[in-house]
Amino acid sequence: MSARTIVALSGGIGGAKLALGLTRVLPPGALTVVVNTGDDFEHLGLMICPDLDTTLYTLGGLANPELGWGRADETWTFMRVLETLGGESWFRLGDGDLALHVERTRRLAAGESLTTIIADVARRFGIGAAVVPMSESPVRTRVLTAAGELAFQDYFVRQRCAPALTGVRFAGADAARAAPAAVEALTADSLAAIVICPSNPYLSIDPILAVPGMRQLLEQARVPVIAVSPLVGSRAVKGPTAKIMQELGVELSARAIAAHYADVIDALVLDEADAGLAAHIPVPVHVCKTLMVSLGDREQLAREVLGFASRLSPG
Amino acid sequence: MSARTIVALSGGIGGAKLALGLTRVLPPGALTVVVNTGDDFEHLGLMICPDLDTTLYTLGGLANPELGWGRADETWTFMRVLETLGGESWFRLGDGDLALHVERTRRLAAGESLTTIIADVARRFGIGAAVVPMSESPVRTRVLTAAGELAFQDYFVRQRCAPALTGVRFAGADAARAAPAAVEALTADSLAAIVICPSNPYLSIDPILAVPGMRQLLEQARVPVIAVSPLVGSRAVKGPTAKIMQELGVELSARAIAAHYADVIDALVLDEADAGLAAHIPVPVHVCKTLMVSLGDREQLAREVLGFASRLSPG
Repeated sequence: MSARTIVALSGGIGGAKLALGLTRVLPPGALTVVVNTGDDFEHLGLMICPDLDTTLYTLGGLANPELGWGRADETWTFMRVLETLGGESWFRLGDGDLALHVERTRRLAAGESLTTIIADVARRFGIGAAVVPMSESPVRTRVLTAAGELAFQDYFVRQRCAPALTGVRFAGADAARAAPAAVEALTADSLAAIVICPSNPYLSIDPILAVPGMRQLLEQARVPVIAVSPLVGSRAVKGPTAKIMQELGVELSARAIAAHYADVIDALVLDEADAGLAAHIPVPVHVCKTLMVSLGDREQLAREVLGFASRLSPG
Repeated sequence: MSARTIVALSGGIGGAKLALGLTRVLPPGALTVVVNTGDDFEHLGLMICPDLDTTLYTLGGLANPELGWGRADETWTFMRVLETLGGESWFRLGDGDLALHVERTRRLAAGESLTTIIADVARRFGIGAAVVPMSESPVRTRVLTAAGELAFQDYFVRQRCAPALTGVRFAGADAARAAPAAVEALTADSLAAIVICPSNPYLSIDPILAVPGMRQLLEQARVPVIAVSPLVGSRAVKGPTAKIMQELGVELSARAIAAHYADVIDALVLDEADAGLAAHIPVPVHVCKTLMVSLGDREQLAREVLGFASRLSPG
């Protein structure tokens, strides 16, 4: 029997933290992280994949701990000069970060798949997990607001999530195909659990589930599908999750997270602060500390999730 | 009567030094620098124009005095990370320099002309001269060597001019059109002189002359066409000029420079070290210090060239 494998679905920062914990407590090669590409966009002629890159930098130990995005030991000469040239400067690209965008764009133009390129970068960064884009097809998250529809980065970075969100759509999703490496990982005989990381359900996980076949793979999985709630004490740890839930008129609680994922999850991991909600959630719940400040927190949450998964599917 | 104008034909470093001197001694707007684009190439998906950029950085006071190319106050994070990604690193791109390449590539892809883009950058850099590419059409200098034909940057940068050069050709030149702004400057009623800067004749000036119509514009000009010899005491100041002349079996002297430009020049500026050759050169000669070490040297050579031009076409 081959070693047991785990698939994690993840967006950017919060999801990547748990993915890092999982890589550190699992044997090398046991983890596949399927990453949202709905945030990807072409900017300055370069293909930028924010969630994939955050995942690569986080798992590669290269992430910028102060900013929460981009690379550590970064310099910003490019942006400084770009401004003198009148170039668009609302999306901050560090000099080292830029190397990934330029090289990815060049390799895509040369006909390589995003999956191949990301796998190569992950190998070069010494990452022991497989990092896989959800799809090779362009799926672009579009945010519906009272002021009209916005491209994701326009909403998220340029307008700092200020416009009230009324809905989200995933342009191109209907015609998209799940990346073969993602399907392979989700249907492997060795698969022991699927983990939905504590990423933003609406902006980071829903695009993955919008790729045709992806939702069905989770519904039909013969292994536990476990979501980790991104809320701690009915607040979002980081980013606009709570703001969006309020704008959508959704109860700001892990109950709403469970409801949102109702078709696909078998179980939910809740933060200790939300322990009181456990009785109101219709799937098995595991309560533990989910806030990940230290590297030890990441590893401990990974252990909690994996232990919960084992108990859900004994043997 | 409109103010007198000057056109300088220039390659990179040596030519840009004289162009800087000319901008500093001429009234604002009086100088147009027509720049070689035969060195341009696509690299990492970016359009790179080495001679235009050296001209922009030099005239904008942004050039790197240590390297002789690129920008002052440069950082190199992009290259360092690109190497970790397995990207091509033989052509060094500084982080600030990269902004110009990325923004130019984006604007070209959006349909702007190279002339427009460079004019805008020159304006943003506060340059008082017009900087004009010789052509909008791709003209690509190819170096013929015993080991076969090489793309220019492969010969010049990757192989550091090591292969013996047997000839040069300018791919695309036959189908190229001179940039309208260059033709306009070369045919302006206000034109008082055309200066061929002390750039490499074979690699930097010949591509300009290879653009259909350009040679004729110089031959038919009713104003003096004055070349400044790039040799000082029968040595090249910088770069492979002397090596190339030897490989081509050309006498290493200003006489050969005069012969090379015979159809197009009316006069030649020689360095003091070559004063003894004056009698052997079939066009009027002005002897002065041509070596440009200080900014004062650049201005003084500019004054010498302009004074010589005035004497050649009095009134």
